[in-house]
Amino acid sequence: MTSGPARTSGAAYDSLSKSAANYVPLTPLSFLRRTAAVFPERLSVIHGPRRFTWGETYRRCCQLASALQKHGVGQGDTVAVVAPNVPALYEAHFGVAMLGAVLNAVNIRMDARMIAHFLTHGQAKVVMVDREFLGVTESALAHASEADRSFRPFVVVIDDATADITWPPNEPSYCIRRYTEYEELLGRGDPNFRWEWPTDEWAAISLNYTSGTTSNPKGVVYHHRGAHLNAISNALVWSMPQHPIYLWTLPLFHCNGWCFPWTVALLAGTNVCLRKVTAANVYSAIAQHGVTHLSGAPTVLGMLVNAPPQEKRPLPHPVAIITAGAAPPPTILTRIEDAGFKVTHVYGLTESYGPAVVCAWKPEWDSLPATEQARLKSRQGVPYPALEGLDVLDPKTLNPVRADGETIGEVMLRGNVVMKGYLKNEAATTEAFEGGWFHTGDLGVKHEDGYVELKDRSKDIIISGGENISSIQVEGILFQHPAILEAAVVAKPHPKWLETPVAFVTLREGSERCSEAEILQWCRENMPRFMCPSRVVFKPLPKTATGKVQKYVLREEAKRMPDAIESKL
Amino acid sequence: MTSGPARTSGAAYDSLSKSAANYVPLTPLSFLRRTAAVFPERLSVIHGPRRFTWGETYRRCCQLASALQKHGVGQGDTVAVVAPNVPALYEAHFGVAMLGAVLNAVNIRMDARMIAHFLTHGQAKVVMVDREFLGVTESALAHASEADRSFRPFVVVIDDATADITWPPNEPSYCIRRYTEYEELLGRGDPNFRWEWPTDEWAAISLNYTSGTTSNPKGVVYHHRGAHLNAISNALVWSMPQHPIYLWTLPLFHCNGWCFPWTVALLAGTNVCLRKVTAANVYSAIAQHGVTHLSGAPTVLGMLVNAPPQEKRPLPHPVAIITAGAAPPPTILTRIEDAGFKVTHVYGLTESYGPAVVCAWKPEWDSLPATEQARLKSRQGVPYPALEGLDVLDPKTLNPVRADGETIGEVMLRGNVVMKGYLKNEAATTEAFEGGWFHTGDLGVKHEDGYVELKDRSKDIIISGGENISSIQVEGILFQHPAILEAAVVAKPHPKWLETPVAFVTLREGSERCSEAEILQWCRENMPRFMCPSRVVFKPLPKTATGKVQKYVLREEAKRMPDAIESKL
Repeated sequence: MTSGPARTSGAAYDSLSKSAANYVPLTPLSFLRRTAAVFPERLSVIHGPRRFTWGETYRRCCQLASALQKHGVGQGDTVAVVAPNVPALYEAHFGVAMLGAVLNAVNIRMDARMIAHFLTHGQAKVVMVDREFLGVTESALAHASEADRSFRPFVVVIDDATADITWPPNEPSYCIRRYTEYEELLGRGDPNFRWEWPTDEWAAISLNYTSGTTSNPKGVVYHHRGAHLNAISNALVWSMPQHPIYLWTLPLFHCNGWCFPWTVALLAGTNVCLRKVTAANVYSAIAQHGVTHLSGAPTVLGMLVNAPPQEKRPLPHPVAIITAGAAPPPTILTRIEDAGFKVTHVYGLTESYGPAVVCAWKPEWDSLPATEQARLKSRQGVPYPALEGLDVLDPKTLNPVRADGETIGEVMLRGNVVMKGYLKNEAATTEAFEGGWFHTGDLGVKHEDGYVELKDRSKDIIISGGENISSIQVEGILFQHPAILEAAVVAKPHPKWLETPVAFVTLREGSERCSEAEILQWCRENMPRFMCPSRVVFKPLPKTATGKVQKYVLREEAKRMPDAIESKL
Repeated sequence: MTSGPARTSGAAYDSLSKSAANYVPLTPLSFLRRTAAVFPERLSVIHGPRRFTWGETYRRCCQLASALQKHGVGQGDTVAVVAPNVPALYEAHFGVAMLGAVLNAVNIRMDARMIAHFLTHGQAKVVMVDREFLGVTESALAHASEADRSFRPFVVVIDDATADITWPPNEPSYCIRRYTEYEELLGRGDPNFRWEWPTDEWAAISLNYTSGTTSNPKGVVYHHRGAHLNAISNALVWSMPQHPIYLWTLPLFHCNGWCFPWTVALLAGTNVCLRKVTAANVYSAIAQHGVTHLSGAPTVLGMLVNAPPQEKRPLPHPVAIITAGAAPPPTILTRIEDAGFKVTHVYGLTESYGPAVVCAWKPEWDSLPATEQARLKSRQGVPYPALEGLDVLDPKTLNPVRADGETIGEVMLRGNVVMKGYLKNEAATTEAFEGGWFHTGDLGVKHEDGYVELKDRSKDIIISGGENISSIQVEGILFQHPAILEAAVVAKPHPKWLETPVAFVTLREGSERCSEAEILQWCRENMPRFMCPSRVVFKPLPKTATGKVQKYVLREEAKRMPDAIESKL
């Protein structure tokens, strides 16, 4: 027993320092390593007829890291992947990080010019591309080398057997002659590769460009610490037990699949890949593989409930869905829960590692009427355990708004699951973090119980005749019309009122005869006059890969439209 | 879009730095703050007739912090608490940390001299003491001030209404005249106290002295980061959902209740306090409060299954138990699982924040015979998610032993849930962390599947005639004797064989007539001759507060015993 003579213990406590025995940087790589060691024989990934165990996935990730290293990839290098939800992209979430390199999972709905921008901005050293997207990627590479002659990344083609091959036409040997195939690349790697643990948990792990809802994509950088912590928070807020069967309805290229690749590894679950998200595929995967959890935008929920009867199958057990991107419409919520799905509503942005806010459900709400439950569930909610701060602030003063459910402010976040910053964009990073908060650009209110509810993105607020119109609110009312399947409301410039709302809608099957005049009349009967759309346009809504309506496209269209009917009102 | 001309992105990734928006030190205080904000009305603590909500618990913790600050407590100061599982000790797990001060929860089974050592070694600035333990604490304070006249901590008495008051006899106003009562202290504090977030997640949060199984207690220091991470790992390995009802059968002063005070806050669960752990109290709490989870040494399991029928009640639902301290004996395991409890076996030490290793159960084992299941479950297992390294190493070379289930080495740990170090004991800290591993002092083997199994603590290995005898193994066989309730085997020095095993046992009710000769004969028939105890002594086993048998006490007794029967063999 060593008893020191110190009067206070502060210095003695402080003198105990970090060592290899008691300090290790946080990283999601620890999840893979542990699960592969403990559950080597459990299924890690299912993809069509292919099956991998965690032992195999771990060795394949080691091979990927080892092979990429042989091709010159090292710490801080970017590896881009242009692929849907296939095993190679899942493996890249670990194999790239094993080198201290940075994964850029590219949104496959982007055009060649945009992909070219991602590749050059991120200085991708390697581009791995699913064969279905080789055409657009080759165009992107052509654009990129026009802009920068020295830009010559190493290209690997993922020749997925379940892909729709559209490129190159009628030339089966094209890929083989020109590119290294992914499995061939793995073959060059060592399955026992001794990868280096990150020396700093603050080191970058991935690069995600903001989605197409804004016209100016920025490169959002995640680090190992944040990825580790948000993957854990996913498990906690969703009460996920060990060994979930997780269906990939959510694109892996969207905020790294909201960190779920790492969550599934943490829990030694099974990833069920899904190249094409259709209702038939989802119902079939649930029945065949015993899927317990899936995530997706509300459009996925809509797809599931609106599927034709022959595509549906009764659920063998309750299936948990996390949805984000927009509040699930009440009617869809009721119908999908009646079908046996249990919906959790979360909220986040690319900048917050995907979801970082959850509408935490209270058991006492179970006994409320369905409409009241839907209203409560449509709120974005409260912080993830890993998010230390969530508030609605006056964007100028940074003072919190009153928690009255009415006063609108900007939703702001703070904590370890807020991005490292925007790559090579100090100005945007500084602006986004002004005052020690991440400014989401989303407008919302705080309710008396502390739950946050989005009212609109700032740019989706329509300012008409001095009144602020929430496009979400107008859409919510439109959804109640029996003929309307989907609706998006945007601002159209107006000489007198400054702006006026315009509605773009798709109609349900069998309701095609519903007219613009009929819906306009119904609006006048069901919402304040100032909120009524001046025009209703019937057409399929343009969407991002993650199911978000691309309102900026609709805004452009609205600008070009004649003012028409409204002037007669 | 800012596109930089950089050739590689490494420097650009690195240049994104920490700010108030995207970096927050990890601490379990975040769990309390979040849960109190999101679920202010949920029950946090139940204690006899008392009920607290999370909103109340949060405000009481703020009051405690505020009041302690007024009494001069600040960063790095030690606050000692001598109490059983009462709300005040639960609150101290947060309120003390809110000041950056360090909680020392003192083992209430210790004698006055040992408590005096803890208080002076840790330089406690405040001592909060449950009235039942005021007598021993006053003696401890007297010892302490003899050793150091300037040692005068501020003493607070917790006047718990459910306590057995043994001190002071016949003088009800004694406490009131002399000491501040805990609720009175809270009354001096501000429920809206604006506490400071720790500036460094590596800062000390608690001090726990190693238990009485060794004769030389050391002061183990935990930090905020480790407490945060192990609290999360508890939830993950146990698949704990939101809102568990957790029964405090485990002393809060044991490794901070294995970090479960923080786990329960993380999950917005309910703590059910238990001043006296009896079978009747446990069964009654399960029925009354809907307890879903509890933890305890195997003696708690034994108590539950061996309880007289009138104390038992059928379980209203399955109850999960985490047990540690020793492998649960197979017979007890079978009987407790038959009764509806679901047992998870974990392993750890004071130095690893309590449990850091779990016998992760594989669903495919469910179909094995009960004895085989018990054998698998008696293994200590695999690392917690928060423990980065677990291995069995040759203590000299630090090379891993073969994973053959036979080669014995020392169990070693590495990771964020290994202690900060031993307070004011640099030599012991350096020795414990030699070679970048924490040396547990426990001997074990690694099985082919990577699961670690303890064979014995080094000092519990009995070396007899050139053979190593595992006392755990001998005990396991003794447990199979129908008359034996408990057994502990220790080494007794022997002139010829170096050491010889001696068994201390307690007999089941109704088996009191069983003789030493009878059991010795049975041993000869059921184990290799070299392993047979030379003596069997019938007596109650001396135990630590956490139910660990104090083998050093038995070893002393064995030393003094005549060699007796063995010489006749």
